[in-house]
Amino acid sequence: MKTVRLYDTTLRDGTQAEGITFSSADKLLIARKLDEFGIHYIEGGWPGSNPKDIEFFRQVKALRLRRSRVAAFGSTRRAGTRVARDQNVIRLLEAGTEVVTVFGKSWMLHVRDVLRTTPEENVRMIRDTVAYLKGKGKELIYDAEHFFDGFEDDPDYAMRTLLAAEEAGADTIVLCDTNGGTLPLRLGEIVDEVRRRVRAPIGIHSHNDAGMGVANAVIAVRHGAVHVQGTINGYGERCGNANLIGIIPNLVLKMGIPCVDRPRLARLTELSRYVDEIANMAPDTRAPYVGASAFAHKGGVHADAVCKNPRGYEHVPPEAVGNARRVLVSELSGRASVFMKARDLRLSLRREDPALPAVLAVVKRLESEGYEFEAAEGSFKLLVEKALERHSPFFDLEGFRVSVEKRRDGTLISEATIKVKVGGRFEHTAAEGDGPVNALDNALRKALTPFYPSIEEVQLADYKVRVLNARAGTAAKVRVLVESADEEARWGTVGVSENIIEASWQALVDSVEYKLMKDRVRTRARRGKGR
Amino acid sequence: MKTVRLYDTTLRDGTQAEGITFSSADKLLIARKLDEFGIHYIEGGWPGSNPKDIEFFRQVKALRLRRSRVAAFGSTRRAGTRVARDQNVIRLLEAGTEVVTVFGKSWMLHVRDVLRTTPEENVRMIRDTVAYLKGKGKELIYDAEHFFDGFEDDPDYAMRTLLAAEEAGADTIVLCDTNGGTLPLRLGEIVDEVRRRVRAPIGIHSHNDAGMGVANAVIAVRHGAVHVQGTINGYGERCGNANLIGIIPNLVLKMGIPCVDRPRLARLTELSRYVDEIANMAPDTRAPYVGASAFAHKGGVHADAVCKNPRGYEHVPPEAVGNARRVLVSELSGRASVFMKARDLRLSLRREDPALPAVLAVVKRLESEGYEFEAAEGSFKLLVEKALERHSPFFDLEGFRVSVEKRRDGTLISEATIKVKVGGRFEHTAAEGDGPVNALDNALRKALTPFYPSIEEVQLADYKVRVLNARAGTAAKVRVLVESADEEARWGTVGVSENIIEASWQALVDSVEYKLMKDRVRTRARRGKGR
Repeated sequence: MKTVRLYDTTLRDGTQAEGITFSSADKLLIARKLDEFGIHYIEGGWPGSNPKDIEFFRQVKALRLRRSRVAAFGSTRRAGTRVARDQNVIRLLEAGTEVVTVFGKSWMLHVRDVLRTTPEENVRMIRDTVAYLKGKGKELIYDAEHFFDGFEDDPDYAMRTLLAAEEAGADTIVLCDTNGGTLPLRLGEIVDEVRRRVRAPIGIHSHNDAGMGVANAVIAVRHGAVHVQGTINGYGERCGNANLIGIIPNLVLKMGIPCVDRPRLARLTELSRYVDEIANMAPDTRAPYVGASAFAHKGGVHADAVCKNPRGYEHVPPEAVGNARRVLVSELSGRASVFMKARDLRLSLRREDPALPAVLAVVKRLESEGYEFEAAEGSFKLLVEKALERHSPFFDLEGFRVSVEKRRDGTLISEATIKVKVGGRFEHTAAEGDGPVNALDNALRKALTPFYPSIEEVQLADYKVRVLNARAGTAAKVRVLVESADEEARWGTVGVSENIIEASWQALVDSVEYKLMKDRVRTRARRGKGR
Repeated sequence: MKTVRLYDTTLRDGTQAEGITFSSADKLLIARKLDEFGIHYIEGGWPGSNPKDIEFFRQVKALRLRRSRVAAFGSTRRAGTRVARDQNVIRLLEAGTEVVTVFGKSWMLHVRDVLRTTPEENVRMIRDTVAYLKGKGKELIYDAEHFFDGFEDDPDYAMRTLLAAEEAGADTIVLCDTNGGTLPLRLGEIVDEVRRRVRAPIGIHSHNDAGMGVANAVIAVRHGAVHVQGTINGYGERCGNANLIGIIPNLVLKMGIPCVDRPRLARLTELSRYVDEIANMAPDTRAPYVGASAFAHKGGVHADAVCKNPRGYEHVPPEAVGNARRVLVSELSGRASVFMKARDLRLSLRREDPALPAVLAVVKRLESEGYEFEAAEGSFKLLVEKALERHSPFFDLEGFRVSVEKRRDGTLISEATIKVKVGGRFEHTAAEGDGPVNALDNALRKALTPFYPSIEEVQLADYKVRVLNARAGTAAKVRVLVESADEEARWGTVGVSENIIEASWQALVDSVEYKLMKDRVRTRARRGKGR
């Protein structure tokens, strides 16, 4: 069976993305994860451009990666220098990797305007650098930068640069769509053209500027490429590199190319989210295969049909990529979707449960008032517990007051006072904040922490406001969604009111109650085990 | 030259996305924008499934769209019913649109398991429904749902369903990759196969589950499709529909298909962000063509090279799609875009105006703080007037105080007090409201109306809140957009702060100031004419 080698450049090209920087420690964590997953090559950095990358190459050796080979990246020697004395080439060798990836120019425009050298010298630079590094025993991957643009401008010259690398011994020749603007059918034609002339294995390095990053990689493979470069989650300059998280399941599940085995493919979603977490990027909920919405189904009838025959609505089984089906409890909720939602959340509710109609009635009433439980599983769980009369509140509110004052000089003061009762004891306190909701949040936590210290573990990770009937102007109803997290879980809660303070209050209270309910369940489970 | 017709389903299929709901007013705003941009068809809703969509179809007629035709969407008649008595078909006609889009089943699996009818009856359902609606004089677009999956399972049957629609008179036959799992080369082959048998114009409706939404649309066009369905920003169920914002520039700039003319293509970025704003979605900074990072270049040397020869680093000129290069030396593009915006608003500002750099500096600073002027033309005009030192405020704020109190019994009281100064006179007053912002709005109007009675004409038509840095939880910065209207105009204003009250205050003050400025200009103009 035809194989394809996966080459990850998250740690090098991925860091060209706006807003992404990795510490050395981050890079090591990602490298270990890529190795576990079974990526064949990890491009660790560009030692000639970033001297501190040398440190990464030193440390990564200690990880003793089992499946991945580490590659150092660098350019061909400079024009007019001797390759053995070229600083970039020296640094490449210092990295001490088995694999080196060398990029060279294929586009006359760059030879002339950026390198400012002659077409002949550029070809010699490629040949010399590849031959020299091959002589040092390296596996050599040659990246033909701007190849497709170069080919469109001057196909003969672009091809000459590839042949120079091939003749000098390059193990793989990678065609790069560096500006990301090539459309797929044309790209396939050009790959065919190259394969008629070049016998070395061909790779593809695509970018997403025309929205074709993944498509171009897949099409190049169809046209014979056996090496695919990309980044996790498509990080990269401008619109990003080709997204390996999208490419891999297309290759394995749709084209039958076993570049990753099935058990490891089932960790694809985990890989994607892990790297987002390290990069501090919010995961793309709509991402193909791994997004939280990728297998989410709205609507009652539809939800029912999905359960009966998932193939009718899902292009692949979500578990194949470690994702999960989600039935959204939305406007069109029926019994089936409430039941499935409850099952997803591992709530003890059966399809025939006599309490199901009561839960459904509450959900429908709240939804008609503007509540939405798609992103508020915490509130949904509480709602079910309340409808089943299994929930007793953790505190009673005696009252709160929030105020914002703006003075003549522009000073703003936001303050909240709150009084709560827990088991017969009162707590009356006050706090300031960056705004009225923040002040109320601070006051609520301050009031409850003496009774429930674990509230301090809760972080508010996200706060969203949506105006429901915008035409009512400032008297419009708003929906507030809060996402909270502690060390082990994340949960969403929701509130709706004409009054943004009240809507926020509902979501904040649910967040706290959910946390305390969750902790109680866990404590009971532990005690149960102990017996 | 070959043409392609663009068919937008943001208002119907787009709303299947998790987290996206549009009010009727939102839908009308988007329809107007799509018409201005030159989208050929706007699918407004599914009246048979959502009875309130009928209201949208009634209201959209009053907009008198110039470039777009509005389509109502619905299914074929139910199995075993007479088409003239089918509720869904009756509702489709009630929508009163020139164009109707009917979807039918092409996949045996769905005929059997979802419709639970016979293959023959399904074909009759398609034929009857298309023929009946054609008999009513409609332009009929037939959406062959799950066509590609159906074709893979049973090509003969899938083809029969298309031929039934063609024979019954469908004007366009749209091949849908409903589950979004078809890879591009296979999709091209199937389109070829269809074109050998079907002579009606072919359309494509793709989804993004395999990351191929845009690629599949573009490839179908290469294989002869002349009608492309998609949504703005790729909103849609699961991983979304094909993104028209990516497809359109590929067709126009790379394939030479003039489906949108160049001046309107230059408003693509604006269109994308406008719809995101209304949907309350954070724009994707990496989005091809329109993302804030799409033409962002890191690094000084690189930036310099980009300026010398942008073609070496950019697959298309950013201004072709209304985006801008972002490099250190970005003043040129910024200058041009501020000038263009000012021109759009008919502000008296020339390209060589010595005040332009001052305006630009203010815009840049505010944008970096989170302000956005695309939907806030009122604030933008005020900002320009202020930067040109042509604006004097209509009142001074001495201070305000807003409070929300929640009592034990659940009672909520929102109150605002305010003190303003107009021409040496003070007004100190108070008002209640449905929430703190409404109370402040009421108090501000109450305080100013004695001095400026025309303020009573202003309606607040829309109030939107967007959290900018959601990860900061309740201390996050919010942007408030207010849309106001009087009898002759509508205008948007914006405010940004960590404090929602302050952000709302800024937008409310701008709304009032804009109204008064506008009235003053009009009064002067009238006086001028009288002379």
